[in-house]
Amino acid sequence: MESRRVEALADGVFAVAMTLLVLGVHLPELPAPVTGAALLAALRALALSLAGYAVGFLLLGTLWLGHHNQFRFIRRADRTLLWLNLFFLLAVALVPFTTALIARYPLQPVAMAIFGGTLLLAGVFLFAHWSYAVNAGLVDDAVTPEAAELIRERMSMAMVACLVATIIGAFLPKAGLVLFGCMPVLSMLPGRVDPALAEDVSTSD
Amino acid sequence: MESRRVEALADGVFAVAMTLLVLGVHLPELPAPVTGAALLAALRALALSLAGYAVGFLLLGTLWLGHHNQFRFIRRADRTLLWLNLFFLLAVALVPFTTALIARYPLQPVAMAIFGGTLLLAGVFLFAHWSYAVNAGLVDDAVTPEAAELIRERMSMAMVACLVATIIGAFLPKAGLVLFGCMPVLSMLPGRVDPALAEDVSTSD
Amino acid sequence: MESRRVEALADGVFAVAMTLLVLGVHLPELPAPVTGAALLAALRALALSLAGYAVGFLLLGTLWLGHHNQFRFIRRADRTLLWLNLFFLLAVALVPFTTALIARYPLQPVAMAIFGGTLLLAGVFLFAHWSYAVNAGLVDDAVTPEAAELIRERMSMAMVACLVATIIGAFLPKAGLVLFGCMPVLSMLPGRVDPALAEDVSTSD
Amino acid sequence: MESRRVEALADGVFAVAMTLLVLGVHLPELPAPVTGAALLAALRALALSLAGYAVGFLLLGTLWLGHHNQFRFIRRADRTLLWLNLFFLLAVALVPFTTALIARYPLQPVAMAIFGGTLLLAGVFLFAHWSYAVNAGLVDDAVTPEAAELIRERMSMAMVACLVATIIGAFLPKAGLVLFGCMPVLSMLPGRVDPALAEDVSTSD
Repeated sequence: MESRRVEALADGVFAVAMTLLVLGVHLPELPAPVTGAALLAALRALALSLAGYAVGFLLLGTLWLGHHNQFRFIRRADRTLLWLNLFFLLAVALVPFTTALIARYPLQPVAMAIFGGTLLLAGVFLFAHWSYAVNAGLVDDAVTPEAAELIRERMSMAMVACLVATIIGAFLPKAGLVLFGCMPVLSMLPGRVDPALAEDVSTSD
Repeated sequence: MESRRVEALADGVFAVAMTLLVLGVHLPELPAPVTGAALLAALRALALSLAGYAVGFLLLGTLWLGHHNQFRFIRRADRTLLWLNLFFLLAVALVPFTTALIARYPLQPVAMAIFGGTLLLAGVFLFAHWSYAVNAGLVDDAVTPEAAELIRERMSMAMVACLVATIIGAFLPKAGLVLFGCMPVLSMLPGRVDPALAEDVSTSD
Repeated sequence: MESRRVEALADGVFAVAMTLLVLGVHLPELPAPVTGAALLAALRALALSLAGYAVGFLLLGTLWLGHHNQFRFIRRADRTLLWLNLFFLLAVALVPFTTALIARYPLQPVAMAIFGGTLLLAGVFLFAHWSYAVNAGLVDDAVTPEAAELIRERMSMAMVACLVATIIGAFLPKAGLVLFGCMPVLSMLPGRVDPALAEDVSTSD
Repeated sequence: MESRRVEALADGVFAVAMTLLVLGVHLPELPAPVTGAALLAALRALALSLAGYAVGFLLLGTLWLGHHNQFRFIRRADRTLLWLNLFFLLAVALVPFTTALIARYPLQPVAMAIFGGTLLLAGVFLFAHWSYAVNAGLVDDAVTPEAAELIRERMSMAMVACLVATIIGAFLPKAGLVLFGCMPVLSMLPGRVDPALAEDVSTSD
């Protein structure tokens, strides 16, 4: 399978980025003697870092899922597709940095803009990746134009949601944080695209 | 194989988490001139970090083994299963942090509660992952209801053991540490589930 | 497939090296109270680190692409090939360090020489890897001597470009930085080698 | 293929450990204004760290090669084999720490003993892994008892060499360093085991 290694590199970048997120949660360093109350207070101060970890992880999971679903249909890769994939991964690998930024400066509009802008960039490259694969005939013949369009629509909606959350977040950081936290939840809901995805599997069995 | 990339992402997260554990063992920085006795003393002070590394590694190994065994039977994945898998990995990727926490504050009940709670969370998601896969018909037809139940029982016992170790550890941290150190050993013992696992391999040959 | 694990190790090293690059972009630590203007200024000071991240990532992507293309044709591996691969990865895994060096000391000729020298070393091992595979008969029979030569030519040109950029960069660091930034762009252009690559895929379908 | 994921986890741990080695090479932090001479001097002081990086990388490469060669013959895995594999990886993932230790304290016998001892531990688990796989009938039927014994002999010799280097290094650290640097070179030489390895590939084609 031609696309095997593209997926292996992507899975590796996602796995490292997801696990590096935890480096943004700093171990509290308390002077001895350590009391339970002091440690509890120090851990409470980590709540924002931990929330950032969870949101960053689930947003990466959402992007991974989108990449995963595309490669269920992509059969071949050419130079252009490989580079679109690399630019997508370039944005993905930045997420541990932007997540640490937002967890450190949660109420700063510029931090929110960089966080949302990086996710949007990843979304744009993922969209371009799918559009190119469809147009260049690199996808499975079983993918109907309707199914290709459904996937494109779903991705467009996700990008619009990301853009809205970024703009709102640039003015109202707290509202932006809540909106970004909701995006993975939306991705967990079943979509009109699911039957098309399921169908493909059953026919290839 | 539909589940190939889910496993690749999981293997990547486990591999990174296992290897990041070693970042919790800090290189001693001694002022020159360094004597052998001073270095030996500094390395002895690392004993707890190294024990934490070993216990964290083997507990991650235990979780990986459980995930690995499930995917010997899981043939398909849907949106829900992929998200259960991502939540499981979210807990797994936290283990380097919780292990560093427990190695730094070994006698603090709150550190032990967070360490055990994260493992329990991973166990709950792994259990939900298997239960969902069986109920949604995503597993191999060769898996009998009895075999599915045996795996569920084994996981339930592991979760109860983890809960007990967490509760005991919250009151008696030292006893909790010993109990968590014993859990991978239990996982090394052959179980009633092994013949079912072996059978599947022989029939698929 | 004999070469599967060689590729898996390489994909892993590339994925980790690409994602570790982001550790070279340090989160600004501002004293409270943080103003938007102060954070914006601190983030502007990161521009060079971020440019280094992007260039390092895309250069690693270029090397990955070269490795990927070789393994579309390599069918077997022997001890010598595996060690050439390991030496190639040794240079690849150094890139996060040399990228951080160049981002920290962008105008120092010695930093540029080390950055370019490491990339050149990776290129030399990648070239040796391909030449050895062809000469030792480890590649697919469908690879004609002309196609093998085309790939060698393309790699030679890339190595010459890298050498030129390193030498120019040792005297004019800014010009060297621009030249290295252009190299991935060159790799995105279609090449005379593409039909040969495409042909192979169509015949193996 | 039953052993696929065991290899995927191992490749991931090796890839991360190899790439984490570079974190032991610290970027020099010079006060402004930075002169070329000052940077050159600072980089020269890194020579030992870089040598440690190279030796650690190549020793990990040697261990990876041994693991890789075993899995060319291992067809099945059971609980015991999986745990032997995990214990092997536990030692492998420690190598970035022990390499940083030896690069920081190159002339301390205790550092050398820990460095060599960890490698020896990895060797012992790798040896146990192969012996168990052969005895439990988990290897390919094409593996003759003679070939299995040849591999065991080669591994025994490597372990003896590692033990000798560790003991010598505990008394004469410099000689130990040179001996460990020579071990990957030995692994690059063709061995009596190579025809057996090659034969297997040709018969399985």
